[in-house]
Amino acid sequence: MLITLLSDFGTQDTFVGVMKGVIQSIAPDATMVDLTHHVPSQNVLAGAFALKTAYSYFPPGTIHLAVVDPGVGGGRQPLAAQIGDYLYVCPDNGLLSYILARETAHRAVTLDNPRYRLPQVSRTFHGRDIFAPAAACLAAGVTLEALGTPVERLLTLPLPRPDIMADQILAHVLYIDVFGNVFLDVTEDMTKGWGELEADIRGVTVGGPADSYVQVPEGSPVAIFGSSGHLEIAVRNGNAARRFGLRVGDTLRLRRKNSGPERTLVV
Amino acid sequence: MLITLLSDFGTQDTFVGVMKGVIQSIAPDATMVDLTHHVPSQNVLAGAFALKTAYSYFPPGTIHLAVVDPGVGGGRQPLAAQIGDYLYVCPDNGLLSYILARETAHRAVTLDNPRYRLPQVSRTFHGRDIFAPAAACLAAGVTLEALGTPVERLLTLPLPRPDIMADQILAHVLYIDVFGNVFLDVTEDMTKGWGELEADIRGVTVGGPADSYVQVPEGSPVAIFGSSGHLEIAVRNGNAARRFGLRVGDTLRLRRKNSGPERTLVV
Amino acid sequence: MLITLLSDFGTQDTFVGVMKGVIQSIAPDATMVDLTHHVPSQNVLAGAFALKTAYSYFPPGTIHLAVVDPGVGGGRQPLAAQIGDYLYVCPDNGLLSYILARETAHRAVTLDNPRYRLPQVSRTFHGRDIFAPAAACLAAGVTLEALGTPVERLLTLPLPRPDIMADQILAHVLYIDVFGNVFLDVTEDMTKGWGELEADIRGVTVGGPADSYVQVPEGSPVAIFGSSGHLEIAVRNGNAARRFGLRVGDTLRLRRKNSGPERTLVV
Repeated sequence: MLITLLSDFGTQDTFVGVMKGVIQSIAPDATMVDLTHHVPSQNVLAGAFALKTAYSYFPPGTIHLAVVDPGVGGGRQPLAAQIGDYLYVCPDNGLLSYILARETAHRAVTLDNPRYRLPQVSRTFHGRDIFAPAAACLAAGVTLEALGTPVERLLTLPLPRPDIMADQILAHVLYIDVFGNVFLDVTEDMTKGWGELEADIRGVTVGGPADSYVQVPEGSPVAIFGSSGHLEIAVRNGNAARRFGLRVGDTLRLRRKNSGPERTLVV
Repeated sequence: MLITLLSDFGTQDTFVGVMKGVIQSIAPDATMVDLTHHVPSQNVLAGAFALKTAYSYFPPGTIHLAVVDPGVGGGRQPLAAQIGDYLYVCPDNGLLSYILARETAHRAVTLDNPRYRLPQVSRTFHGRDIFAPAAACLAAGVTLEALGTPVERLLTLPLPRPDIMADQILAHVLYIDVFGNVFLDVTEDMTKGWGELEADIRGVTVGGPADSYVQVPEGSPVAIFGSSGHLEIAVRNGNAARRFGLRVGDTLRLRRKNSGPERTLVV
Repeated sequence: MLITLLSDFGTQDTFVGVMKGVIQSIAPDATMVDLTHHVPSQNVLAGAFALKTAYSYFPPGTIHLAVVDPGVGGGRQPLAAQIGDYLYVCPDNGLLSYILARETAHRAVTLDNPRYRLPQVSRTFHGRDIFAPAAACLAAGVTLEALGTPVERLLTLPLPRPDIMADQILAHVLYIDVFGNVFLDVTEDMTKGWGELEADIRGVTVGGPADSYVQVPEGSPVAIFGSSGHLEIAVRNGNAARRFGLRVGDTLRLRRKNSGPERTLVV
């Protein structure tokens, strides 16, 4: 059985290794794959977005273990859920918001059966003491229902949504990847029929959508529908976020390209 | 068989990948789990502490391969040891100091049998040429004794110890994790019967021990017994090390809370 | 079957995790080992060097999947090749330059058989959509030939070469590792018969080759033939690149040590 791990634990400490030790102790045959452990510290929404970009590329039945948990030890409940083809183990704090916006929750439980936790639960590291054991038990064949009490409603966070008008969209920066590509909350269907578009970014007009980065010269900006399905502002072989000083949450205006005289793709 | 890897090699270079290639060549069925490769460069004591936080969460028989090796090519001996339920492969330079302070060494050998090294041993990368092959051979069923000559005494480093008085403790910063939580050399048994305690940190009084981070408001400091069993100075959803300018080796004073008028947990 | 992964994707995003999900979906029994994902962004030559330091330490038949791909979506072809004992899956952009300088290409194909790609190929992430599926298919038993059209010539980049004279060598910095050790394009055979040598670095004379770092005092520089077979400029328990301000591409002069009065190894 396959277990993925996502967290904001980084790789400096042994937190992730310890969770894997717990998993191996319970489910020695489980295969473990790291999604990322560099979610910005305690940023649940960023973790939710990262999970969304990855979950569906795994075999059905994969257990996605996600721990971004600023409320550890507080009122938030630890959770296991089956949603669509996958199982999830995580705090009930909104980490599944993007998944739940796309799929229907089938069933979920609070991880309150002490039998499937470590004997001693610490105050600060439920990843080790509650979440990893639950994921491992699922991998080892324990049923979801056995892990705890059924939950009706899972917490979801408000997701950024673009303001879509006839010929323009007010979009938001959702995510910035390691290359500095800037992901917007705009997907291809929202600009259907537009042909070309233009983005106003700090006084620069960036054109698109391009078919590939290499359609523009080195160092030039371009808008492109990327691998996650989102419109990205990119700079060929450069860093768009740094070039334009963009951050998660920033607002950009996209325009359907005017039908005036022919213009180059990137002005 | 399970092999964990801990080092100061980072993940920028292929050092860790190469060690795994060597292991897979000798023991194709071994499962490998990274503890961390971001031990501060050539800091044996930090590596020893990291190993201590993780080793016991793995199944008995796990082989812990640890390479923080500033003395590579010098007089320090390469080592394999069985201590308690686990096997260790590492330089004999103090990396096992915390383990040996808790467990009794059963048996250890110097890795001087050339049959279980790579055919050519480099001057600078014994992780690849000596340690990884030894760990893989153990995983493949070679006995500890076959790997080399028995060793009587393993090197241990002096470990920080708090100065414990009746109503106060002079404590030291052992470790700072990625969240900025500050681990002290104080465990729960040392403050048994104290009830509440206070730490003087740069003129600020921090109270505890808390039951969870969320017991204090966002951005407030708190002392809490963390997942490693050590007292930690933390800031809820913040970075205590940065807030207070604390570093490994710094000294703090903890006091049993005075029995005067009722005070809030964090002043 | 063993698949290694090398890229410039970093570990902040889920790119690498997603590639592993794709691989596991196609080849559930494949074992995956990361070489590194911190190749300097879009630096094909650095990726080629990293691959060279690692490939031969894996069992014959290992599939090396390498994605440093500044030309994604452009004219460069996606490739699978068998070279010597290993299989490679990567863009045809020079990533195999060092391998091809040492081994003879047996056979290679362009990955143009749509059957062995993901159903939908994105504009920006061929690692997920083309390269990972190809590597997984090879692991699952698909033949190289089935993946696409045979290719005659693979692209190779010009590799740095030292200028070797009778008693001196004009060398170049190839690579700098995480410890700050500076790898030169000089191997042991090039200085055969030299005995000692000296390097002029920013007015400092550094001697060697040493038998180990610990042959010089802490903080002293030394030249040493390292684990990759290359001459390295190192500082014992220090960072040579930072000390001397050296960067990839810099030129250094090495001299056969003069036969004058006895000198200390490091002046």
